[in-house]
Amino acid sequence: MKPIDFWFTVGSTYAYLSVMRLESVSRETGISFNYRPFSVLDIMLEMDNIPFLTKPVKERNMWRDIERRALKYGLPANVPVPYPPERHEYDLANWVAVVGQEEGWCGDYLRATYPRLWRDGQQFGADPNLSDGLQEIGQDPARVVDRARSADTARKFDAATDEARGLGIFGAPTFVVDGELFWGDDRLEDAISWRRTGKLG
Amino acid sequence: MKPIDFWFTVGSTYAYLSVMRLESVSRETGISFNYRPFSVLDIMLEMDNIPFLTKPVKERNMWRDIERRALKYGLPANVPVPYPPERHEYDLANWVAVVGQEEGWCGDYLRATYPRLWRDGQQFGADPNLSDGLQEIGQDPARVVDRARSADTARKFDAATDEARGLGIFGAPTFVVDGELFWGDDRLEDAISWRRTGKLG
Repeated sequence: MKPIDFWFTVGSTYAYLSVMRLESVSRETGISFNYRPFSVLDIMLEMDNIPFLTKPVKERNMWRDIERRALKYGLPANVPVPYPPERHEYDLANWVAVVGQEEGWCGDYLRATYPRLWRDGQQFGADPNLSDGLQEIGQDPARVVDRARSADTARKFDAATDEARGLGIFGAPTFVVDGELFWGDDRLEDAISWRRTGKLG
Repeated sequence: MKPIDFWFTVGSTYAYLSVMRLESVSRETGISFNYRPFSVLDIMLEMDNIPFLTKPVKERNMWRDIERRALKYGLPANVPVPYPPERHEYDLANWVAVVGQEEGWCGDYLRATYPRLWRDGQQFGADPNLSDGLQEIGQDPARVVDRARSADTARKFDAATDEARGLGIFGAPTFVVDGELFWGDDRLEDAISWRRTGKLG
């Protein structure tokens, strides 16, 4: 079966629930996922789409909703986690994802860096999260960060954001199946059903 | 089992998927729902929470997402439906829900008025939707509209909105179970699980 495109941003809160599930979902369904890092922040700012930071009541619900769902999936969730990352942390965390995508360890990186925030409160794109996470998956932090900070990586990240914008993506995570957009971790099952049957199950 | 509070606004798009399912969900689960009309519009305006009208890309996804899910539930969905209602239509449609809640036919009213918008493109709170829908469920439109337009009904609607705000509700539909908020039609299954077991299934 053709893979599903998994468009995500390191920094998205709900992406935590997805990145920790994709491996087992792949095993169960035989469907693989293309990791596509992009900058949802830039698209959201362009749209004046600010769901949480200026809306404390909505933000509180988001933390509780994720906490309940994380428990269901057996994932740690010490909410609220430090949020959002600073721009330089956000950029570096995502540039590393771009490098990981090119080198084939993007999923491993996400499964190393996300729990360090959600379990331990360590921010993305900064130490100790970044170096410890990369070492855990057998990558040399100095080499990876050097490549992540290159102009080439930033250019690829921006190009991916342009591609996402062109697809009509406005939030993360978004699963794309044959041009159909499924926005949100809670649409993962819809995306899988669409891949299998062209409709929702 | 104790009922689940179903906080909704006539005018909410995703509420369509809920109101058309609640009866069968009740039959299957033995859990009933308290219909609690309130004005999500006022709370959203207070929060500057405008998810769709100023965000065409997000709005387009909303229509498609509901269309796909409506098909799954066997419901008509000629998207996009006329949206949003004018304020006077919105108020009347919701005041009628308040009357229906008091008189015990709120669910019947919702199942009559919602498909008239989503199948036939007839706006809420205006004829032919309003009168035809009320007649279909055996209510006299003139009597109901007269009571709906009373100061007493408006006062009750506003009081319900205050109560919703106090509960931390910011969107519709929202299911409330023992103080836990489950926002969105797609959290109905979570709410049911919480009612049964105090956790997600």
